[in-house]
Amino acid sequence: MKQANRERGCVLWFTGLSGSGKTTIAQEVENELLGAGVPVEILDGDVVRENLSKGLGFSKEDRDINIRRIAFVAHLLQRNGVFVITAAISPYRRVRHEARAMIKDFVEIYADAPLEVCEERDVKGLYAKARAGEIKGFTGIDDPYEAPEAPEITCHTDTETVQESAKKVMDRLIELKYIEA
Amino acid sequence: MKQANRERGCVLWFTGLSGSGKTTIAQEVENELLGAGVPVEILDGDVVRENLSKGLGFSKEDRDINIRRIAFVAHLLQRNGVFVITAAISPYRRVRHEARAMIKDFVEIYADAPLEVCEERDVKGLYAKARAGEIKGFTGIDDPYEAPEAPEITCHTDTETVQESAKKVMDRLIELKYIEA
Repeated sequence: MKQANRERGCVLWFTGLSGSGKTTIAQEVENELLGAGVPVEILDGDVVRENLSKGLGFSKEDRDINIRRIAFVAHLLQRNGVFVITAAISPYRRVRHEARAMIKDFVEIYADAPLEVCEERDVKGLYAKARAGEIKGFTGIDDPYEAPEAPEITCHTDTETVQESAKKVMDRLIELKYIEA
Repeated sequence: MKQANRERGCVLWFTGLSGSGKTTIAQEVENELLGAGVPVEILDGDVVRENLSKGLGFSKEDRDINIRRIAFVAHLLQRNGVFVITAAISPYRRVRHEARAMIKDFVEIYADAPLEVCEERDVKGLYAKARAGEIKGFTGIDDPYEAPEAPEITCHTDTETVQESAKKVMDRLIELKYIEA
């Protein structure tokens, strides 16, 4: 039985292209953490946009504001001992650095899959719309995705199973002493 | 020594005119709660506007959005055992009801002082500006304040000291079993 460090908490900050598997791994990790008796909150990109950022668009400025809000809320929860999982694309390096600087107990998880793979999956049908020009400024198509330079964890979601990726995350959390083995 | 119900948490939702003493009582209550070993977060109106609602104005619609965001964040914290203190004017009854319905462990605290008293205090100089027409839609001047109908606690901040008001709040929290005596 894993034990939580109730005093500490941390933020598991997933980043990656749309369709890279962020939310899928996040949900698997959530289950593992709940099984370990840890308080967990997922701040999913879509849920946050609905509740904190309605009215914001997808310009660089609006995306940055959205990410800063996620970071603010994640920080409030984390410093009260909660394990917070964020799963927004968060494509820009600079604002991810800002989040890391504010939060400190920050574990960056890069859901790394080639664009072609994400585009082929196209779970939400968004890539097709972006290619057709119906969505502008779509990450990976006509807006940049800036990959993390030194994430705590990289999940190669094109070659790993969800379980393998989630295990990687849990093992690293033990290594970083957020969870006891 | 008071003991917290770590599993429960609650939201202390202050409401009242600008200058009615919400933040002052909130800070006193925060100290008392911290002294009782309880995890506390204050979501002050100004701090929240800076971090979650930049760009929103003071129209009814924008105020409602701002209050819903506060409620959303307060709820996330509360369900993880945190005692959350909100101290925004939150002038409209309907959206306070919404917050109560979502949060459930919701303690409404009415900072009740006559408009004349608040206006005379005018700590931030806002009433003067509102009277001069430099601020539009100011609560109590040209925008309504809808007093709570059945708040858990009413603090008469024109006749009570801050300490008396804070004691009222703490006593009620014991009564409601959020804190053990």
